[in-house]
Amino acid sequence: MRANERQQAFRSQNTWDAFLITSLPNVRYLCGFTGSSGALAVADHQWAFFTDGRYTEQAKAQVKNASIHVASGAPAILAAKWIVERIKRRKSAQIGIEADHVSLSAEKRIDAELRSSLGRSGFRLVPTSNAVEDLRMRKDSSEIKLIRNAVQLASSIFSQVIRAIRPSLKENDVAAELEYLARRAGAEKMSFDSIVASGPNSALPHARPTNRKIGRGFVVLDYGVILAGYCSDMTRTIWVGRATGVARQIYAAVLEAQLAAIAAVAPGVEAQAVDGAAREVLRKDKLDKYFTHSLGHGVGLEIHEAPRLAKAQTQKLEPGMVVTIEPGVYIPGKGGVRIEDMVLVTKTGCEVLTPTPKEFLVL
Amino acid sequence: MRANERQQAFRSQNTWDAFLITSLPNVRYLCGFTGSSGALAVADHQWAFFTDGRYTEQAKAQVKNASIHVASGAPAILAAKWIVERIKRRKSAQIGIEADHVSLSAEKRIDAELRSSLGRSGFRLVPTSNAVEDLRMRKDSSEIKLIRNAVQLASSIFSQVIRAIRPSLKENDVAAELEYLARRAGAEKMSFDSIVASGPNSALPHARPTNRKIGRGFVVLDYGVILAGYCSDMTRTIWVGRATGVARQIYAAVLEAQLAAIAAVAPGVEAQAVDGAAREVLRKDKLDKYFTHSLGHGVGLEIHEAPRLAKAQTQKLEPGMVVTIEPGVYIPGKGGVRIEDMVLVTKTGCEVLTPTPKEFLVL
Repeated sequence: MRANERQQAFRSQNTWDAFLITSLPNVRYLCGFTGSSGALAVADHQWAFFTDGRYTEQAKAQVKNASIHVASGAPAILAAKWIVERIKRRKSAQIGIEADHVSLSAEKRIDAELRSSLGRSGFRLVPTSNAVEDLRMRKDSSEIKLIRNAVQLASSIFSQVIRAIRPSLKENDVAAELEYLARRAGAEKMSFDSIVASGPNSALPHARPTNRKIGRGFVVLDYGVILAGYCSDMTRTIWVGRATGVARQIYAAVLEAQLAAIAAVAPGVEAQAVDGAAREVLRKDKLDKYFTHSLGHGVGLEIHEAPRLAKAQTQKLEPGMVVTIEPGVYIPGKGGVRIEDMVLVTKTGCEVLTPTPKEFLVL
Repeated sequence: MRANERQQAFRSQNTWDAFLITSLPNVRYLCGFTGSSGALAVADHQWAFFTDGRYTEQAKAQVKNASIHVASGAPAILAAKWIVERIKRRKSAQIGIEADHVSLSAEKRIDAELRSSLGRSGFRLVPTSNAVEDLRMRKDSSEIKLIRNAVQLASSIFSQVIRAIRPSLKENDVAAELEYLARRAGAEKMSFDSIVASGPNSALPHARPTNRKIGRGFVVLDYGVILAGYCSDMTRTIWVGRATGVARQIYAAVLEAQLAAIAAVAPGVEAQAVDGAAREVLRKDKLDKYFTHSLGHGVGLEIHEAPRLAKAQTQKLEPGMVVTIEPGVYIPGKGGVRIEDMVLVTKTGCEVLTPTPKEFLVL
């Protein structure tokens, strides 16, 4: 989908007189700009982009279907001034702003800008949630292609990472190898802080790599890359040393839960039902109480986006959504297992994007 | 300074009945928690910390001088409920919140929590700016030690990075080497996206590494690490191949400007004066128009914090502030030079923390 189609889709759902977009992933989605300072405004059907002097050339090269305005000062304020010019002859106007991304102090500055120029009470800022995020939930074909590339890149280095692992290496060293391989393979950067968690650390879902030596036991590898702006996210858990029967049982249960959740993914299915499918499998083995986080999340320009696959989430899945499926079992003080793929919701079910095998791997 | 001293300093300057702190670096500063989900509340002189089940053990190990409350749900809302319990018998109360970090939708949720429990108009949220950031500007001795360590680590890998550079290497490959070396040396992570900008790319102050081969010309290396939570930031510009006279002149001018700015740093001096000292040197050589960004910024738990060293900044420097001094000259389409150190404001002037030499280096 091109910028103008995305902008039209946005405008058909957000009919305020004007709208100010300040969240950078949302700005990028609607006009293509990838820099770290910019704001996008629309009044009626005119679009305008604002940035500072550092990004003059980049804005010219990237911004689609919007006039480009370069000036010093906060882009959001420049955008507010531009909106004022477009609406000042009206008696009243409603201007949408992003409720989840605009801070109280930013709202105050934007509002002061409107008041000082318009001064009339008919002009009003309308905090709006998920105006762009709802569009971003359903990926178009160009986005799916970019996500596939990011997923492939992350998967492509996995076997090299595995070959580098030795019991005497520290978690931090494995993380360094992993990120080096990703960079050399062309990753722009990692999509989040890589997790390399060994032994008892594998029981911490959000472990950070430490100077602990890998030793014997589970090793959770959870990482992803950004390529052309799009994120990937994958987790594999391996075992180093002679495996215990309990370890094999836990691994088998998590894998079964993961496959059951994947099998549950289809258009029209509520997000909570997919989460529930994984929990039900674990309940059978009395392991569900050790699955202490939600099943998954959308992935795109951001590593965590809508929809959430979790309890009480009634959002229905639709073709084009890309989500992670990542159940885990964490036995405090002992160890844990998580297995995570990215899947694309299709017209009939889903396609698993992550090609890396999931058998129990013993090093 | 210990947590209780920081909390006392905060409380002596922020006298609302209660205060809700949701910015994670601010939470960390005041109570020591380093995880990704947490909120801190104070009512009168009682402190309480809120997080979810993933961080039970970590909170117990890290949080100082605050009661610890673990529950599912958004920590900010849990904190708001706790505040309600402490103030509900009063006729009125003012509750500080962080104006620069609380989104409009978060404020709405917090306010709804208060309204549903208290319902009276005497209770009011007070958006407050820089309540914790103002304290964080002046680093205490324990922080300065941690910053020194982060600066030393980043500097320690510089000569290895230089040895790895060859004209045939891509910018991305140099960035991969650099980040690998930093990780292996013990960095938690990079403090921002590393810049490796060669040839004409060096004229872009915020360049991202590309697949361009280094070739002949300037190479700007701008990077930093995080160690024990504290950031470092440094830039060196080298030349690859036979150097031109113009290149030497530009380099000499930037270095002279950088040294002049460092010489201007002292307690009581306004931030804008330090920025001006660098610009004045460049003006002499008619290069000031190519210095298109501000001179520097504070560094600590975040890579960009107060104070800003820029035009119109009247903040006076004080002992304990740690700032970057990073003038640059960028000739569009040709190339650029930036030289950046971190300096500590002392009682009599400043100490340059970055030990890496600054002579014109030709590879």
